[in-house]
Amino acid sequence: MTHAHPVVELEKAALARWCGGDPSGFLEITAPEVAYFDPFLPTRLDGLDKLTAYYESLRGRIQAPRHEMIEPRVIEIGDAAVLTFRFVSYAGSEGMEMRWNCTEVYRREGKEWRIVQTHWSFTAKPGHDA
Amino acid sequence: MTHAHPVVELEKAALARWCGGDPSGFLEITAPEVAYFDPFLPTRLDGLDKLTAYYESLRGRIQAPRHEMIEPRVIEIGDAAVLTFRFVSYAGSEGMEMRWNCTEVYRREGKEWRIVQTHWSFTAKPGHDA
Repeated sequence: MTHAHPVVELEKAALARWCGGDPSGFLEITAPEVAYFDPFLPTRLDGLDKLTAYYESLRGRIQAPRHEMIEPRVIEIGDAAVLTFRFVSYAGSEGMEMRWNCTEVYRREGKEWRIVQTHWSFTAKPGHDA
Repeated sequence: MTHAHPVVELEKAALARWCGGDPSGFLEITAPEVAYFDPFLPTRLDGLDKLTAYYESLRGRIQAPRHEMIEPRVIEIGDAAVLTFRFVSYAGSEGMEMRWNCTEVYRREGKEWRIVQTHWSFTAKPGHDA
């Protein structure tokens, strides 16, 4: 595990585009069979076609120029790289803070990495007790 | 990917114990360097020691005899198995419905599988619009 793993830089670059309203950064590095969860969907999305349709519906609608990846960590298993991090973004003109947990599983394909699983969710507020 | 993958059965067995108040089913199959997210924690838990302390604090407190794994799916990458599923549980004496998204990344170690990453979050209610 390392903080300088190439998937961290890939993820940051895709997030920067995402936070400017451009989902193509993620779509370009996502594998055909991707499994995708986020907190707005009532089900898992399976496959790049479904994810593309969903992301295209959001194109241009997200503006979060201020954002930060927190404590990225990578666990490699052969050609798999399991990236976990928290993420904070300040969305829209009001700069509403949103705090996220994220898991991205990347698969090495030659010199490239592709996302096969994405899981976004909300982070609990500090002080919340289970 | 297959629904009959051994990690699906491992996960179901650990969940059955979890839903009876016993976290040991998960602890026994979790790797030392596990990365763990759930919706009640303000941060990621890194490592089996921290996860053990957290789970022990919940021992005996969870009762959800009625529960179901929904649409498990496994993507294998060499010795990694990326399991995603939804989960519905009916907790406590009131049977309160809780709906979950889950990702578990397992690593093959000889004949066994160990969890290296767990991510639990809440599923959006149907009809919710992002």
